[in-house]
Amino acid sequence: MAGNTYGTLFKLMTFGESHGPAIGGILEGCPAGLTLNLEAIQGELERRKPGQSAIVTQRKEPDTVEFFSGIFEGKTTGTPIGFAIHNTNQKSKDYSHIKDSYRPSHADKTYDDKYGFRDYRGGGRSSARETASRVVAGAIAKQFLAPVQIRAYVSQVGSLIMDKPYQELDLSKTESNPVRCPDPEMAGKMEAYIRDVRKEGDTIGGVVSCVIRNVPKGLGEPVFDKLHAELGKAMLSINAVKGFEYGSGFAGVQMKGSEHNDSFSQDGTTKTNYSGGIQGGISNGEDIYFKVAFKPVATLIQSYETIDKEGNAVTVQGKGRHDPCVVPRAVPIVEAMAALVLADFRLRNEGAKL
Amino acid sequence: MAGNTYGTLFKLMTFGESHGPAIGGILEGCPAGLTLNLEAIQGELERRKPGQSAIVTQRKEPDTVEFFSGIFEGKTTGTPIGFAIHNTNQKSKDYSHIKDSYRPSHADKTYDDKYGFRDYRGGGRSSARETASRVVAGAIAKQFLAPVQIRAYVSQVGSLIMDKPYQELDLSKTESNPVRCPDPEMAGKMEAYIRDVRKEGDTIGGVVSCVIRNVPKGLGEPVFDKLHAELGKAMLSINAVKGFEYGSGFAGVQMKGSEHNDSFSQDGTTKTNYSGGIQGGISNGEDIYFKVAFKPVATLIQSYETIDKEGNAVTVQGKGRHDPCVVPRAVPIVEAMAALVLADFRLRNEGAKL
Amino acid sequence: MAGNTYGTLFKLMTFGESHGPAIGGILEGCPAGLTLNLEAIQGELERRKPGQSAIVTQRKEPDTVEFFSGIFEGKTTGTPIGFAIHNTNQKSKDYSHIKDSYRPSHADKTYDDKYGFRDYRGGGRSSARETASRVVAGAIAKQFLAPVQIRAYVSQVGSLIMDKPYQELDLSKTESNPVRCPDPEMAGKMEAYIRDVRKEGDTIGGVVSCVIRNVPKGLGEPVFDKLHAELGKAMLSINAVKGFEYGSGFAGVQMKGSEHNDSFSQDGTTKTNYSGGIQGGISNGEDIYFKVAFKPVATLIQSYETIDKEGNAVTVQGKGRHDPCVVPRAVPIVEAMAALVLADFRLRNEGAKL
Amino acid sequence: MAGNTYGTLFKLMTFGESHGPAIGGILEGCPAGLTLNLEAIQGELERRKPGQSAIVTQRKEPDTVEFFSGIFEGKTTGTPIGFAIHNTNQKSKDYSHIKDSYRPSHADKTYDDKYGFRDYRGGGRSSARETASRVVAGAIAKQFLAPVQIRAYVSQVGSLIMDKPYQELDLSKTESNPVRCPDPEMAGKMEAYIRDVRKEGDTIGGVVSCVIRNVPKGLGEPVFDKLHAELGKAMLSINAVKGFEYGSGFAGVQMKGSEHNDSFSQDGTTKTNYSGGIQGGISNGEDIYFKVAFKPVATLIQSYETIDKEGNAVTVQGKGRHDPCVVPRAVPIVEAMAALVLADFRLRNEGAKL
Repeated sequence: MAGNTYGTLFKLMTFGESHGPAIGGILEGCPAGLTLNLEAIQGELERRKPGQSAIVTQRKEPDTVEFFSGIFEGKTTGTPIGFAIHNTNQKSKDYSHIKDSYRPSHADKTYDDKYGFRDYRGGGRSSARETASRVVAGAIAKQFLAPVQIRAYVSQVGSLIMDKPYQELDLSKTESNPVRCPDPEMAGKMEAYIRDVRKEGDTIGGVVSCVIRNVPKGLGEPVFDKLHAELGKAMLSINAVKGFEYGSGFAGVQMKGSEHNDSFSQDGTTKTNYSGGIQGGISNGEDIYFKVAFKPVATLIQSYETIDKEGNAVTVQGKGRHDPCVVPRAVPIVEAMAALVLADFRLRNEGAKL
Repeated sequence: MAGNTYGTLFKLMTFGESHGPAIGGILEGCPAGLTLNLEAIQGELERRKPGQSAIVTQRKEPDTVEFFSGIFEGKTTGTPIGFAIHNTNQKSKDYSHIKDSYRPSHADKTYDDKYGFRDYRGGGRSSARETASRVVAGAIAKQFLAPVQIRAYVSQVGSLIMDKPYQELDLSKTESNPVRCPDPEMAGKMEAYIRDVRKEGDTIGGVVSCVIRNVPKGLGEPVFDKLHAELGKAMLSINAVKGFEYGSGFAGVQMKGSEHNDSFSQDGTTKTNYSGGIQGGISNGEDIYFKVAFKPVATLIQSYETIDKEGNAVTVQGKGRHDPCVVPRAVPIVEAMAALVLADFRLRNEGAKL
Repeated sequence: MAGNTYGTLFKLMTFGESHGPAIGGILEGCPAGLTLNLEAIQGELERRKPGQSAIVTQRKEPDTVEFFSGIFEGKTTGTPIGFAIHNTNQKSKDYSHIKDSYRPSHADKTYDDKYGFRDYRGGGRSSARETASRVVAGAIAKQFLAPVQIRAYVSQVGSLIMDKPYQELDLSKTESNPVRCPDPEMAGKMEAYIRDVRKEGDTIGGVVSCVIRNVPKGLGEPVFDKLHAELGKAMLSINAVKGFEYGSGFAGVQMKGSEHNDSFSQDGTTKTNYSGGIQGGISNGEDIYFKVAFKPVATLIQSYETIDKEGNAVTVQGKGRHDPCVVPRAVPIVEAMAALVLADFRLRNEGAKL
Repeated sequence: MAGNTYGTLFKLMTFGESHGPAIGGILEGCPAGLTLNLEAIQGELERRKPGQSAIVTQRKEPDTVEFFSGIFEGKTTGTPIGFAIHNTNQKSKDYSHIKDSYRPSHADKTYDDKYGFRDYRGGGRSSARETASRVVAGAIAKQFLAPVQIRAYVSQVGSLIMDKPYQELDLSKTESNPVRCPDPEMAGKMEAYIRDVRKEGDTIGGVVSCVIRNVPKGLGEPVFDKLHAELGKAMLSINAVKGFEYGSGFAGVQMKGSEHNDSFSQDGTTKTNYSGGIQGGISNGEDIYFKVAFKPVATLIQSYETIDKEGNAVTVQGKGRHDPCVVPRAVPIVEAMAALVLADFRLRNEGAKL
């Protein structure tokens, strides 16, 4: 059972391999009558696309989305929105270094073990290129969710940690630098560090933080489909993610209940927000905030030892144009997945009470 | 859409409130012909049940499971396994302190906001009592999965951190102490600390680690249903969980790709295992390991300020018999959810290739 | 993937074998705040239960439903409604004639082929006893759907056909006779005929018709989940059903488009209703009507030839207390399934437009 | 919840409106390693396409399928198969007669009621053009299912009924005439009749029968997802279908159990097959056969009275190129849906027993 679908009511199914003719998807369940801003959707793709700055992969992919259905006279019709992003340069590359050997910490060998066979060009289905389809759907979800505000940003690169609470940050500055860190000073350090890592042909991990404001109360379903459980799954489904925490997170473990409990003000809001906007799996109207840990990209521009299909040791020279650090381009992906989660829960909440 | 179901093929639906007549569930999709060890199932419930030691809640609940269907002549029949755990002392308690006011950092207010109404007795549906049903189903999943070994244990209580790698631990010692920490010395410190916290009427958080051995290759589905994404969701769906990380986790962020990549040995295993047994969302046969962060329990045996339904400030005296630290009893729940995840993926993997 | 669940939002999962300790189910997704009439639910079970008249099986089963959860202070809470019907006389019977041989046109052999094994007592999971759980859930769905009126009745037994259009019938008379045919004269003939068939130890087929009034517009989902497609599936999932038609049905095949098209009146209703209240898979507010064909019950009180597990020819003497004709007791089951279909589509329609 | 998905494991989601840029779909769950015959897939589309004979619509649509993903080096990879059929002449037509008024017995008004809005060009999403996507996926399912043989044919047009049992027919002749009736004499009569109906600008209904041979035992899931229940739903989801029966069907109602029961031969096959190859919802290895009733097409080339959005009576002149009888082109669609049903159940049956 193939796992290419996200959501239950606001539902996205994606298709496509890195170097096939196209990637794309079908978004089902978006209510009829939503006026779509198509430029804003393309704008989200621009935030994700390769080649946008000196610290991301220098591949050239225009990533232009084509819509096939579900939109008429500028509005959603309630029928499925089919779309594709054509791959413009999928031909003629040399994949011999990938075809016959397994790259360490990639999905090459696990795909072969599972399917007996794989499309080895550029990682095939396991390529992060698939996330472009999520960004398209997430951009539609954002428009459906307005005035909910979803703002992700880079809060850590390697050991460079920007630990200011989000309330002290001006998140409108996130897009002002190529790292997408809203603290300009730290952004500069991070950018310089990523440049150094790239020169070595190496890669480095990072953390994306995300804040969601104006969340309606009541989103999230007990018991298994708690709002933070779905957020966690959605984030962990993004390539290279190794961890997720929300609200007080792992640090909250060290607190006592008497410190950690969020007392109510008389207006029903809470005085603190260690809960991260979610109590019992259901949004309480406070800000939702969470962190997502990304490992260092596995593709290196270095020579490495590995094995081929027959188990022979081989030495391979890594090549191509790859991201030295994935988090700057991951920011719009995190936002897109958060939007898909919230849009789905908003629809799921419709019939909660008479 | 109510979220009371876990899994797609090996599927559990649960029902029940803390203080209704019974909790229970239906497990669908367990293959026919599995000889069930019913004592082992009840044994898992004993590991979760209240009153088992001095550092957990002193409530008395026998938690005896009754099976209604799906088992014949000692074996599963392929039809749904219905079961219930009757609540033996659900009557006659005094809930006036919960009924009219909202306990901080509980689900009281979010349930009221969502449903306009709630069963306030003992937390109702939001009570962790629901996890007993998961333990029943998880125990069946464990038997289905044999010889896969799922071993959880407590690795942190408050700021007491046992940071030995799991390979250096004797996990057979986990059950030898009430904390369920396999390091006897640290277990002693943790136990003493939990006793102190309890005396204050306070609570403290903790971390449960989990190791899974003998995992078949190929489990997990690209793209959205990666093995670690489902593990994350399953863990985050457990009451009080605030974070999840697997393999190198949040610490892996600080590593370079050249350090983090797991090189292959010629037999196809990997020399290191920062990937945590999962690559591209699919198990590679190495040990899976992950950590789950639990916040301090919100129920205190202290007086606290809060509001009632009308928004009036009220002072409430916390009472009852509650866990000062949830992680010792959470160990079998983490194992149960891990078993449900793996059992589902094992069935989902059946038709992956011709 | 086991198929014990009906519905996507208003969702029923059932469990239980004919002669296990209990049958029952979990109903998920019923909105919170619905005041339940528990007597009315039990009343629907009485319409289905054995022993209610001389022309149905004479088994004695009280079929009393016990609710475990999801109801508090007389109202639904939005959490799953768990329930069971305990089997009171499941012990001590003699199944040797079923255990070792395959009854013709039963599920005995197909269950053995599929599962390698079966609970042979009284048909196990394939017994129509399972439908009692559907009647419980359907009775709740009816209360949720009010003022929608779902009225089924017997329109054919063997070759005795009552072909009056439903508009000419007084459906309040359906319950006035044991056949559940609203035409008293035909009811008398049918009853006499069923008594004759029973004396022979034989069985006979029948047709249940159903009319649904006060249906909201807009129920049903294009493309695959058309309202009539789900009604058809729901009816065909009832034991012994061989056919389904709605609106003009099979007879409509012989009509020309110019006759068959339902012209609009100026108030938006239609002058005729060959469409059966559904156009393009979506309800249009006109009456929905359909027919369901039931084969003769396979269990005979006669001697018959068959084979055992090893393929040896054996002669078996049919015994027990069985229905000579299934349709009188099928009437509340057809209504229950129709109610489940409509309740689910009502919830599914909530987010259709902004 | 939008209903554009068919299947649970072998799963098709479709998109597209009649006159948008493209229709298409994503097929998920087809096992890896299946060598695909792309010509055979296109061949099925040719059987469905407009303009293929004098008795179907004379529209010109090449209906060429383009595959985007999931196929590599001629074989399925286990990842989703995305595809599209571009609409070549979607522009420039005059829809004013549809835009402002509601065609009788179409989905125009129900779509407007449900979504508040519709893509009125050529029926939009409710157009039978959508079934081309089903034919693509069904053609892949057929290749996956080999050597299962699915053969549909026309058995009735209006009151012209070919009532020979399928065993007496040479189904290889089905494609030898434009009606797709395997009895040449009856085919001639049907063709002449359809020509007459067309001359009147009218339409007529019909029946498609289907026979499936070489079915593996064990397909179908108790309780709700019986094989025939899913076949029924799949057929009823095809545009214009009003009824479904399998095995003895509606006629079986008049039989006694002693006649209707299918006795076993010693080899485990049955001597008769009133069960239609399915017992207890599970295939028993005998031939599956069923009938599907299609109403007369609602689109007439005649003048008709109807209403506009404001409820004013209007007279409209029907125009365009439409099918006078839908069943000849429905034959490949019935086969495609049957293939999707069986492929899904084959995968669902994988983990039925240990």
